[in-house]
Amino acid sequence: MKKFIGFVDDLVPDACAGLAMAHPELLVLNPAPLYVHRRQPKQGRVAVVSGGGSGHEPLHVGYVGSGMLDAACVGHIFTSPTPSQITSAIEEADTGAGCLLVVKNYDGDVMNFEMAAEIASSRHKIETVIVGDDIETAGTGDRRGRRGVAGTLIVEKLLGAAAERGMTLAELKNLGDGLAPRIRSMGVALTGVAVPHTQRTTFALGPSEMEMGVGIHGEPGHSREPFSDADTIVRHLSETVFNDIARTAGKALLFVNGLGGTPPAELYLAYNTAHRFMVNYGLRIERSLVGTYATSLDMQGLSVTLAFLSDEEFSLWDSPVATGALRWGC
Amino acid sequence: MKKFIGFVDDLVPDACAGLAMAHPELLVLNPAPLYVHRRQPKQGRVAVVSGGGSGHEPLHVGYVGSGMLDAACVGHIFTSPTPSQITSAIEEADTGAGCLLVVKNYDGDVMNFEMAAEIASSRHKIETVIVGDDIETAGTGDRRGRRGVAGTLIVEKLLGAAAERGMTLAELKNLGDGLAPRIRSMGVALTGVAVPHTQRTTFALGPSEMEMGVGIHGEPGHSREPFSDADTIVRHLSETVFNDIARTAGKALLFVNGLGGTPPAELYLAYNTAHRFMVNYGLRIERSLVGTYATSLDMQGLSVTLAFLSDEEFSLWDSPVATGALRWGC
Repeated sequence: MKKFIGFVDDLVPDACAGLAMAHPELLVLNPAPLYVHRRQPKQGRVAVVSGGGSGHEPLHVGYVGSGMLDAACVGHIFTSPTPSQITSAIEEADTGAGCLLVVKNYDGDVMNFEMAAEIASSRHKIETVIVGDDIETAGTGDRRGRRGVAGTLIVEKLLGAAAERGMTLAELKNLGDGLAPRIRSMGVALTGVAVPHTQRTTFALGPSEMEMGVGIHGEPGHSREPFSDADTIVRHLSETVFNDIARTAGKALLFVNGLGGTPPAELYLAYNTAHRFMVNYGLRIERSLVGTYATSLDMQGLSVTLAFLSDEEFSLWDSPVATGALRWGC
Repeated sequence: MKKFIGFVDDLVPDACAGLAMAHPELLVLNPAPLYVHRRQPKQGRVAVVSGGGSGHEPLHVGYVGSGMLDAACVGHIFTSPTPSQITSAIEEADTGAGCLLVVKNYDGDVMNFEMAAEIASSRHKIETVIVGDDIETAGTGDRRGRRGVAGTLIVEKLLGAAAERGMTLAELKNLGDGLAPRIRSMGVALTGVAVPHTQRTTFALGPSEMEMGVGIHGEPGHSREPFSDADTIVRHLSETVFNDIARTAGKALLFVNGLGGTPPAELYLAYNTAHRFMVNYGLRIERSLVGTYATSLDMQGLSVTLAFLSDEEFSLWDSPVATGALRWGC
């Protein structure tokens, strides 16, 4: 397995160290317990803290900075951070206005963030928003519900911007929970992923196969199908997402995300199809995002995310952000 | 060959269409002849126009917008745009202050941009800056000289920012030529690339091989070596680049670029090594860039670019830019 990796155990801390060295003005690495936090916290702002297993970069560490996350905790590959990582990050990030935890809906993450919240609650006001934007685990009778995937970025951006504007903890919790039914994602993989620690591929695909409905932890999707072509695949993703979402208005954000090994040209090609599909269905695509933002190591694949936002939420999307991986505005 | 591609001949125009649809406020697609231009040209500003074969996205189309390129011409995969594409783009972009062409040093690109400049020169003031930042074709007796690779982004950013500030055509030409000896890049590939039109891989690597000194057109590098580990590989790239560059001062920009199929975590890991190496050699890394900015389709690989810039040039680097793939500031 050829990867730009050295000692497997150093992968996560070294990648985080690289991120911190590349953006010293924005963020600080705390090596033990491992988390990344904002260089200059905004006093009086509710702290927005996220995290999860590594292997999804730039999610979440790449979104620490001004206007988005105040801290992100990083577990081993595809493994939740520990409660002590999370409580330390809360301790660091909370400047007195409380702390909002943004957690992807996976058993390990939910459990560990819950434990951390309980431990920290004696000294901090804490609320939690669970993100479950994936369409594929819904309706299958899976008691765990929808997984959190690429749509997590949208939740983190909007909540981070709202916190920066001075929204209270209760208001942020309300905003985050309200977003849930209006963000949906679906992914497809052309390859499985090889997990560095095991040197084993989580699922193997033949030269003419693809896996529909994958998450970002290397788990298989809901069906293995014959590989077709970009247009057919992206139309299917777009249609499924479109049919699953709670449509509140005509205006949406459309997001095509690369899963790690898919180059920008293919993502723009996919965006072309997804955009045309949505417009044909009468949607107005008000904003878009195309790139590699929430990965599953070096998986060749992509996901389509659709989000219906209010004018106020679009204004939060547009507001300035300066992080390692997302940056615009002043 | 599983890729998110439909009809091969539609790949390039469809990817450009996707880019334009994702960023309608920034740029406009001209479908025939194919080029992308800035939505709102700044009157009186020298137009900065670039281009080249496709398969390198987001280079160059992703850098059209305010503060960088005014237009980019897109050829077929790994193939220069035609003179008529280039003259049309010049016609569109020049608002009267002249046009600066930024051209990567490849025979086809240099020839076609030269022809276009000659054709357009009766109606436009034109200067050309040739970018050749690759270290590997130098010193090998190759008469064609250094290839233009990831460092092209730095040249385009600085020249675009300088044009936005009102620099004249002659001043821009002078700035661009002066950058040449102070930007160096070197790349490594873990896989060859499969060119969609031929369905053939340009070079094949065994499971324990890597190709050192690759460019971005799928051409082989200067030596095939046994794959080692990230630290050893990136140290070698860093050292070679460091030894080849004209060092003018202690302050540098360090850029780790993914070649298309390498995920962000591996790029940050590589940045960690490159940064430590440069600091150990006494350099002050003033700015950094880590990401997938100049690709060779979906090649698994990366390059390290080092650039020594003056304070004035760092200020140009920092100045606002709003394009599809590079965006910061107001």
